[in-house]
Amino acid sequence: MSTAELNHEQGPTGTADGDQKAYVSAVAQKLAEFLESKRGMLKAISPETMALLDSIQALVTGGKRLRALMCYWGWRGAGGAADSPRIVAAGAALELFQAAALIHDDIIDRSDIRRGGPSVHRQFSQLHQRHRWALDAERFGHAAAILTGDLCLSFSEEVFAGIGPATSAGSRAREVFDLMRAEVMAGQYLDILEEVAGPSKPGEAAVQRAQAIIRYKSAKYSTEHPLILGGALAGASGSLLSGYSDFALPLGEAFQLRDDVLGVFGDPATTGKPAGDDLREGKRTVLVGLTLAKADDDDARFVDERLGIQDLGDDEIERIRRIIAGSGALAAAESMIEEYSNAAFSALDLLDVGAGPAAALGSLARAAVRRKS
Amino acid sequence: MSTAELNHEQGPTGTADGDQKAYVSAVAQKLAEFLESKRGMLKAISPETMALLDSIQALVTGGKRLRALMCYWGWRGAGGAADSPRIVAAGAALELFQAAALIHDDIIDRSDIRRGGPSVHRQFSQLHQRHRWALDAERFGHAAAILTGDLCLSFSEEVFAGIGPATSAGSRAREVFDLMRAEVMAGQYLDILEEVAGPSKPGEAAVQRAQAIIRYKSAKYSTEHPLILGGALAGASGSLLSGYSDFALPLGEAFQLRDDVLGVFGDPATTGKPAGDDLREGKRTVLVGLTLAKADDDDARFVDERLGIQDLGDDEIERIRRIIAGSGALAAAESMIEEYSNAAFSALDLLDVGAGPAAALGSLARAAVRRKS
Repeated sequence: MSTAELNHEQGPTGTADGDQKAYVSAVAQKLAEFLESKRGMLKAISPETMALLDSIQALVTGGKRLRALMCYWGWRGAGGAADSPRIVAAGAALELFQAAALIHDDIIDRSDIRRGGPSVHRQFSQLHQRHRWALDAERFGHAAAILTGDLCLSFSEEVFAGIGPATSAGSRAREVFDLMRAEVMAGQYLDILEEVAGPSKPGEAAVQRAQAIIRYKSAKYSTEHPLILGGALAGASGSLLSGYSDFALPLGEAFQLRDDVLGVFGDPATTGKPAGDDLREGKRTVLVGLTLAKADDDDARFVDERLGIQDLGDDEIERIRRIIAGSGALAAAESMIEEYSNAAFSALDLLDVGAGPAAALGSLARAAVRRKS
Repeated sequence: MSTAELNHEQGPTGTADGDQKAYVSAVAQKLAEFLESKRGMLKAISPETMALLDSIQALVTGGKRLRALMCYWGWRGAGGAADSPRIVAAGAALELFQAAALIHDDIIDRSDIRRGGPSVHRQFSQLHQRHRWALDAERFGHAAAILTGDLCLSFSEEVFAGIGPATSAGSRAREVFDLMRAEVMAGQYLDILEEVAGPSKPGEAAVQRAQAIIRYKSAKYSTEHPLILGGALAGASGSLLSGYSDFALPLGEAFQLRDDVLGVFGDPATTGKPAGDDLREGKRTVLVGLTLAKADDDDARFVDERLGIQDLGDDEIERIRRIIAGSGALAAAESMIEEYSNAAFSALDLLDVGAGPAAALGSLARAAVRRKS
């Protein structure tokens, strides 16, 4: 989504589509205003700290706003008003949390590219190189990005607390937000653990382990928790929140499986990331687990030994792609995406949220599982 | 302070000393209970995530509790009750924030040792080595420690929000907590920036730049903000909070200058860190700035060129120490510590906080500037 769309394009009001556009625009404005309000405080410390703020600002300007939108429709589905500063702030808090997670994730995965431009740690190592500063540029980049992510994490919390009593201690919204943060960090730990410890664990359970990782590091975090957060803020009943889970959890799993397929087969021009990046990072995804289970021994060993090699050649990436497709693993992953999507859409049909929110959630769900980037 | 002291030693109640011991013990108990309450949630994700929790638990078990104690006496000085769950939670939130900052700081500074044991990223790289896992142990250690720090940062916020309405949006306590987080991260950025960009900046302003870094990354964070936070929670007047600043800011500056001196001249057996660690990390402290300004050209160049060299030999460390002492920089730093301490004690005399809190703050202040570790 381009900045122009976020800031200027407004749909007809009163329709689900128009409300969604107005909301996306309001979240963008809230983010811009919040970060602007921090500029003076940071400038008083030193104008040089603007670099941290600029990195955060650039990151929250783009993106699909999936989490904010899930939150919005969770709120609307539970009877929340079309335009409330509270749900705008909740969306902004989720986007800031997502930005913080991406900044740290890119350090962890050594991803130098994010949305077609340099990731935050690369921005800082490039700053170092441009100024020909002393000591190591890469090390400086990592250190600065750790701090930028920490700052962004604090900002996320500040905006969340700013919602008011609805997010105070003991509230359901606060519970969801706290659980979301802990689960995504624990899930990411399982992800990096699997990269290093996976090869020494039982191969037949690899798909199962990868599914647990997906659930915590991505599915709950990308769709389930944001949707429930929105519902909780609007005072949704326990049964509606439970219906939200039935819909959003399989949707999130399908979303992440799509991500895994794109991480290997995606078009760099569309994804904004280098081809086969996940393979170089050594991600032991469900797709990889399926491949190791389905390919013949030689092919499986070829894949197993090359995961996580950072200078993996394009010809090797291509051969791994052929093995994944040829073994039937790609088709199996696609049918899992189909199965999870079906479960999500069946649960969506049962949600008592009104026609507008139901249509909007359906449309978000289709985009999440069919996307090309 | 040992665990035994924290858990079992109770002073006479009703005295400042007894109240302080009871408070330290209550904070330790709160931390233990909070982390215990997270164990089930994390175990349900995977027992393997216990490693993150164990690292956090070990880190919050030790330490001087300086920040929690400043917070406590800021509260008591403003009329807060001797034993209130709110001030215990505030202390626990500060200790968790400090733990998160230390975890990330040790990655940034490549400090392998913390309080005489392995730092968190080293704990995880050792875990990798013990299990002979695949790929790179050091990289795994850094990644796991980034996530552990993030989790700890979220925990800190969760405990802080748990205090209740006194820390909700718009409250003075929330403002202080948010400002503290942003300032310490910005200050740490200036610190790593100075390591790389300092050599290309005007040498005559090096001491001034180092003082700004001290103020934000340490002084405000270690003493001023915690003291004001405690006061704000107890509903202190604006003039009392302003008096707290007058006392705590110079105290924090003296505290950090003492840290800088210990970072070069401290006894490893007492500090729990290798001798000359700050020099290998390339920290451009006030002490270093004074040395570069006061030493003759050859000596200054010798120091300048060796800062940040990670495998700096013991003989080189020893020569740098002799240059720092011989140039008069060490004496100048000691007289700055004296000057800041005097300013702090003068401001303390003017505080209208009652005899008990005044004595306790005086005793904390003396320990902070005269400490050996």
